Amino acid sequence: MDIEALVARITQEVMQQLDSRSDDPRVPPPTRHVGRSDKTCYKRATGECAGAGCCAELIPQDVRAIVHSGAERVGNLLGGRVVHSELARLIDHTLLKPDATRDQVMLLCQEARENLFASVCINPSWVALCAEQLRGSGVKVCTVVGFPLGATTTVTKVMETRDAVANGADEIDMVVNVAALKDGQDGYVEQDIREVVGAASGRIVKVILETALLSDEEVVRGCHLSKRAGADFVKTSTGFGPGGATSHHVALMRKTVGPTMGVKASGGIRDLETAQEMVKAGATRIGASASVKIVRGEKGTGTY
Amino acid sequence: MDIEALVARITQEVMQQLDSRSDDPRVPPPTRHVGRSDKTCYKRATGECAGAGCCAELIPQDVRAIVHSGAERVGNLLGGRVVHSELARLIDHTLLKPDATRDQVMLLCQEARENLFASVCINPSWVALCAEQLRGSGVKVCTVVGFPLGATTTVTKVMETRDAVANGADEIDMVVNVAALKDGQDGYVEQDIREVVGAASGRIVKVILETALLSDEEVVRGCHLSKRAGADFVKTSTGFGPGGATSHHVALMRKTVGPTMGVKASGGIRDLETAQEMVKAGATRIGASASVKIVRGEKGTGTY
Repeated sequence: MDIEALVARITQEVMQQLDSRSDDPRVPPPTRHVGRSDKTCYKRATGECAGAGCCAELIPQDVRAIVHSGAERVGNLLGGRVVHSELARLIDHTLLKPDATRDQVMLLCQEARENLFASVCINPSWVALCAEQLRGSGVKVCTVVGFPLGATTTVTKVMETRDAVANGADEIDMVVNVAALKDGQDGYVEQDIREVVGAASGRIVKVILETALLSDEEVVRGCHLSKRAGADFVKTSTGFGPGGATSHHVALMRKTVGPTMGVKASGGIRDLETAQEMVKAGATRIGASASVKIVRGEKGTGTY
Repeated sequence: MDIEALVARITQEVMQQLDSRSDDPRVPPPTRHVGRSDKTCYKRATGECAGAGCCAELIPQDVRAIVHSGAERVGNLLGGRVVHSELARLIDHTLLKPDATRDQVMLLCQEARENLFASVCINPSWVALCAEQLRGSGVKVCTVVGFPLGATTTVTKVMETRDAVANGADEIDMVVNVAALKDGQDGYVEQDIREVVGAASGRIVKVILETALLSDEEVVRGCHLSKRAGADFVKTSTGFGPGGATSHHVALMRKTVGPTMGVKASGGIRDLETAQEMVKAGATRIGASASVKIVRGEKGTGTY
């Protein structure tokens, strides 16, 4: 078993033993470096330490802190490669191609577990499989609604959300009705979002504005309507539109929604530098398919 | 009132007076040139003829035949421009851009009425408006389900279809679950289609295979499954995938489904020549956004 697989397995064990992360996923975890574990865990002192599993059982508060400080720390302890795990915790590891196969979806889940990504983001017909694959891993299941055109009816968006929740989705990325937003049908847009938020029954809802199709005024209006409707995040792009995330849009969205709401940057983020630029502009979540390469500081390919 | 508007208005009147076209839209109307109307309609002989409206009332069988022979004929009688109206009757006049505004959708309906296109094909949130706009015109309302990725669950596709029908849709263009087709999950694919066909309650269902993502074997298998599931048409493309209709795929689909099922070519058809090439290859329906230019023999732009 190589170092990376070992890190992944220990990390998974730790996460399973912690009941679940109670942290609000909208807010990135604080950077904390804790050194108390070694002193507290008597098993390490006596040579009985079998990894991080028993620590999670004995001193969950410390392991939780370690997990918060990122898998980088765990990786470093074991001599593994340094990965940008602070960033990993912000990434929705995404595969939305219509022709993605079951094997590709299974690999996506495995990569998400190994890298402790925030979630996998997949099309609705994969939700049940991913929920099963990721049970107990701490990685959330995120899916899309009214995707990617946003032009389904509210009735359909609501039914699609309920169905996704029933299949195990933790997070819903819905697409705003772009046409209604452009036509100034603010009441319609807000109600469309509000009903999806209701159908999500407390799960995180992100509203994709498809910023490449909007003027700045429309972006701002879309943000206000999303916030008023009770959504948790605004999100830039579907990855299927004419353009992806820009730091301009992310900054505008952050400025508009204030510090308490999430901003997800997505579309065209394929390297560490771009991802960090988005975080700097105000993003608290990143949607990417090149996530593994991003957290390793490598360059990804693809369109999302 | 210019000639074109006059032609449009008379044509609309004729269509309204005919109860509805009883013809199977899957089969293109025969080319017939009728000359009997002038002799039969006594009002024309007596100078009482007020257009085609009264003829439709008095001799519906003849007017029906005129309509079948195309608006070209009506246009010619009035000295209007020759348009390819045989082809117009095969065209789903399409606007699926997420940022299409209400004004653009209204114009689409107007163009469809004027040119006697088979249908307007629009996103689900426009169905109610188009049904209202096209009532009595003879132009059908076509919408899309699971569009454009095909990766929603069967439950959602069924609900979306029911909702579309409730809002006034006459035809449903659903996207096949591409991943399941590629993964060889034939039972899933067939059932997915069968349930949408059931939810459509007798309305025309077309199955979009997104041929640019498929091998020939997968195209053939998708055709067989669509036919077995009771769909009315197979259709090449969404217009949002990596490629549009090709005469190779249309011919392969026609060969596979035989003469009794419809084949719709869509995606990238922007001129008369390409449209005619598709019909020659076996298409009985054309999806296009440049429809008006196509029937006038002009060249269109755009991606659908």
